[in-house]
Amino acid sequence: MNFPSKLIEDAVNEFSKLPGIGKKTALRLVLHLLKQPKERSVQLGEAVMRMRDEIRFCRECHNVSDSDICNICANPRRDRSLICVVESLRDVMAVENTNHFNGVYHVLGGIISPMDGIGPDDLNIESLIARLQKNQVREIVMALSPTMEGDTTIFYLTRKITPLNIRVTAISRGISVGGELEYTDEITLARALVNRIPYESFLVKG
Amino acid sequence: MNFPSKLIEDAVNEFSKLPGIGKKTALRLVLHLLKQPKERSVQLGEAVMRMRDEIRFCRECHNVSDSDICNICANPRRDRSLICVVESLRDVMAVENTNHFNGVYHVLGGIISPMDGIGPDDLNIESLIARLQKNQVREIVMALSPTMEGDTTIFYLTRKITPLNIRVTAISRGISVGGELEYTDEITLARALVNRIPYESFLVKG
Repeated sequence: MNFPSKLIEDAVNEFSKLPGIGKKTALRLVLHLLKQPKERSVQLGEAVMRMRDEIRFCRECHNVSDSDICNICANPRRDRSLICVVESLRDVMAVENTNHFNGVYHVLGGIISPMDGIGPDDLNIESLIARLQKNQVREIVMALSPTMEGDTTIFYLTRKITPLNIRVTAISRGISVGGELEYTDEITLARALVNRIPYESFLVKG
Repeated sequence: MNFPSKLIEDAVNEFSKLPGIGKKTALRLVLHLLKQPKERSVQLGEAVMRMRDEIRFCRECHNVSDSDICNICANPRRDRSLICVVESLRDVMAVENTNHFNGVYHVLGGIISPMDGIGPDDLNIESLIARLQKNQVREIVMALSPTMEGDTTIFYLTRKITPLNIRVTAISRGISVGGELEYTDEITLARALVNRIPYESFLVKG
């Protein structure tokens, strides 16, 4: 692509480094910003730089935070004896949005994935064990993706946690609410059959 | 969406103001930036702000430019007696990429669209007429979108230009190269039939 302006070329190049944004989309974004009042671009630019510059990670759970301790860990009404282990911030937000979890979190910062060269030492696992040894924790809920990597991570963590005599659970796997049985893959359906639940606890109280 | 951090919320909000980017995509971009080295975010932020701050528009053709006169208008090897009228910078880039145009441009900054409240006075039409009166111009090529608004704009401009005794042409409409006849809509096919061309001038010399 030939750009009439070096400034535009630079902005397009920076945008197109973002995931899912190619050169054409980047150009569309840049031309949109050019049509908007100048403040829009300043706000976007500053928000991005400030975010990256001032962001901190919670000392307790490694969730992103504006301060030393995140809002969830600092909330006295949260059950600190129930810890949900997740991969990333996005998963914290997903669980939070259900409004069905009142415990605290532990963000691993990834999952064990030998293919990508990510081992247990690259994750926030030691701090999790330290937390469990220091605090009174009754249950750990593993909320990791139902993939080979997620299962490997759960297996590794469970082996580490078992000596501490803490209950380990994992979010259930089964067919999606609203999903159609005939389109469900056989592995999911098999697990949904094996892990069937009594009718009384069947309905989600939303 | 509940965000664990005001900084992240701000950045997500700014990204999601861009066209085609919703909250979920914006969050994905922000989390990507968080995982990248800090310089990435600084480069993106600065490129956006610098672009909007320092960009200028060519005094002659209203194309975006890094200086007072854009590269195309400043190029002495360009034919200044041939002006291509386009809607926006994107169209300048599209025509430039064909490598089949050696004239100069005039960027209208939009097309006449009563539905969107855009009239002739909102476009760079007066400066086009002034350019035509001042310089020796032999042909104006209208390269506007083949829509109702584009046709209206061409009609309006042609009426303005006719008294100046300058040849007005428009890019041809017809079936796309590589397109299939059976899937071409009837209006396009009808125009391709009416505006049929002699076989000698048929092949595009690429």
